[in-house]
Amino acid sequence: MKSLRMTFLLLSLSLTSLTSHADSDILKTRWADVKVDTVATGLNHPWGLAFLDDGQMLVSERAGNLRLIAADGTVGEPIGGLPEIKVRGQGGLFDIVLSPNFSQDKLVYFAYAEPESTGSDITSTAVARARLENNKLHDVTVIFSQQPKVMGGRHYGGRLAFSADGEFLFIGLGDHGHRQDDVQSLANHTGKLVRIHPDGTVPKSNPFVNQAGALPEIWSYGHRNIQGMAIQPETGQLWAVEHGPQGGDEVNIPQAGLNYGWPIITHGEQYGGGEVGIGFKKDGMEQPIWHWTPSIAVSGAAFYQGNQFVQWQGNLLATGLRGQQLARLEVNGSHIIHQETLNLKRRIREVKVAPDGSVYLLTDEPKGAILRLSAVK
Amino acid sequence: MKSLRMTFLLLSLSLTSLTSHADSDILKTRWADVKVDTVATGLNHPWGLAFLDDGQMLVSERAGNLRLIAADGTVGEPIGGLPEIKVRGQGGLFDIVLSPNFSQDKLVYFAYAEPESTGSDITSTAVARARLENNKLHDVTVIFSQQPKVMGGRHYGGRLAFSADGEFLFIGLGDHGHRQDDVQSLANHTGKLVRIHPDGTVPKSNPFVNQAGALPEIWSYGHRNIQGMAIQPETGQLWAVEHGPQGGDEVNIPQAGLNYGWPIITHGEQYGGGEVGIGFKKDGMEQPIWHWTPSIAVSGAAFYQGNQFVQWQGNLLATGLRGQQLARLEVNGSHIIHQETLNLKRRIREVKVAPDGSVYLLTDEPKGAILRLSAVK
Repeated sequence: MKSLRMTFLLLSLSLTSLTSHADSDILKTRWADVKVDTVATGLNHPWGLAFLDDGQMLVSERAGNLRLIAADGTVGEPIGGLPEIKVRGQGGLFDIVLSPNFSQDKLVYFAYAEPESTGSDITSTAVARARLENNKLHDVTVIFSQQPKVMGGRHYGGRLAFSADGEFLFIGLGDHGHRQDDVQSLANHTGKLVRIHPDGTVPKSNPFVNQAGALPEIWSYGHRNIQGMAIQPETGQLWAVEHGPQGGDEVNIPQAGLNYGWPIITHGEQYGGGEVGIGFKKDGMEQPIWHWTPSIAVSGAAFYQGNQFVQWQGNLLATGLRGQQLARLEVNGSHIIHQETLNLKRRIREVKVAPDGSVYLLTDEPKGAILRLSAVK
Repeated sequence: MKSLRMTFLLLSLSLTSLTSHADSDILKTRWADVKVDTVATGLNHPWGLAFLDDGQMLVSERAGNLRLIAADGTVGEPIGGLPEIKVRGQGGLFDIVLSPNFSQDKLVYFAYAEPESTGSDITSTAVARARLENNKLHDVTVIFSQQPKVMGGRHYGGRLAFSADGEFLFIGLGDHGHRQDDVQSLANHTGKLVRIHPDGTVPKSNPFVNQAGALPEIWSYGHRNIQGMAIQPETGQLWAVEHGPQGGDEVNIPQAGLNYGWPIITHGEQYGGGEVGIGFKKDGMEQPIWHWTPSIAVSGAAFYQGNQFVQWQGNLLATGLRGQQLARLEVNGSHIIHQETLNLKRRIREVKVAPDGSVYLLTDEPKGAILRLSAVK
């Protein structure tokens, strides 16, 4: 009898274990078995995510809403008080980041497709700042507006990142899809990486502040469509990922005043075939430190730090839309020395590392999800 | 009737076309459709290949023979006059390179497993120089012999490369498999990259010539098993590839006197699982500029230059045994910024770029082949 009871006990433990994993998939990876859990669902093309100190998440939906999500995944009502957002094509509400001093000032910063006037299809990417209180935005102030506004709904960029010291806000922009010819000119914000102070003023140390005819907000240029940005913890350097044309998705470490080559050089090619520009390389234009060819349609980027995946310390994580993946890139200083691909079989828009070291992903779907990656213990 | 004759004519052309490609496979790659032709067959684990000016190839077989292969693939009789070679395990005849002045001096250099005495299983990697005339080696001189010789038949290294100016000969060595503990010591040649003059004398500029207790031939150390080497054309720098343990196959640009970390640090792991050494990184030890994890069992390496694959200029080509591939690595200065894998479905030992810009591969098989990659026009 004693032996029989032991058997039942073991069986029961085994079933408990199975049940608790019922909603999880396991990815076998180099350094860890990764459990993939669904935290929340029903989000309309979620685009950006910020962790609050209290365990809540602030999530933007491209469809134009901002929502608080509880730690247990409960999706809050839309936050009120957003400005008019043009939701069309790739346009809508983009990234959301917290003020470095959020616990005191309650300020949030978000990027979005801003129409020229009410209802207009002439748009560009703007960044606004607002105070978040009682599920509503207060004192909404537009601190940056990409010049010029143009027809068309593609290649908005829209990613935001604060510098490590909180003094600067980087804004990743795009070429609008059909305005490639503007990208090499410093007289506009098309295809630029912009750096401003959090109040919208222009830093005196920006590279083109004293150059006649150049817009002073520009940090670097020659970008096609910056989709992900992250600060490398050990260096404080900004890293940015951008879409190439059917190949040539890039990782760059954008330096002040430098030219990243679009549309003159690229490792991609024209849709339908044929070379873009003059080829791969040109003096005075920077090479990416890594590229994906064919494209994965690279989207978000984050550096891993945390206790959940101890062997991923300092790795760059980058997500792919068409590539349906999380790319884990091992980094040595400013070089990528190895790639591992985690195949998630869903379009992934963004990646963030949670305070507990787990990794959160947003799926790019009309009923999109928040996924959580954790280590199988 | 006229119509019927046209049909026959077209059919006949179509068959001709098929016939001429009957022995070719086509690999679809990013920048070119690559035709794979078999140039020669029946070679016993071919290991090294050198192109002669007259269109012939000099090929070493690990089984202990050196042969001239005609441009049409006709395999010559074994070249006479080789020293005793220990063919056992991974041991045998390794790389073969021509003197930079071969057209005048007819000198060849080859690496091989050298027994301590006739028939002995105690071996190490030696390099000999000889004059090639009338399908026979003359004046065979051993110019380097790895110290110490040990039991065991693994991790010989055995790759050779002349510096761009022809002043120096680099010799890539291994750790014998079971002599990892010797690799961090400078008192032996185990797990070292060695640099000598072509006459076997030690260059005065070698990093350890004035260090008591260090062997003066050492260029760099901390290597596990160097299997491929090539000089980067635009910089004259030596690049080397080496096997890691179940992961952590490396690309390095070995610098004078530096420590490449084996067996203290690696991106691989113990066979059967578990970490090797202390992990990935350590002050005073160099990181690879690229690693394959899991391993491809990297073997040969060459830089592409030529007119056959114009968009591969400057790329590093590296072959895989277990990985059964040619890896095409795009290079920017000293960084690898992209990888494309050409899946060849055979163990590949070595890669060389022919004078006409086509790419030659050796398959690691008892009846091994020389394959030729050319662009489909």
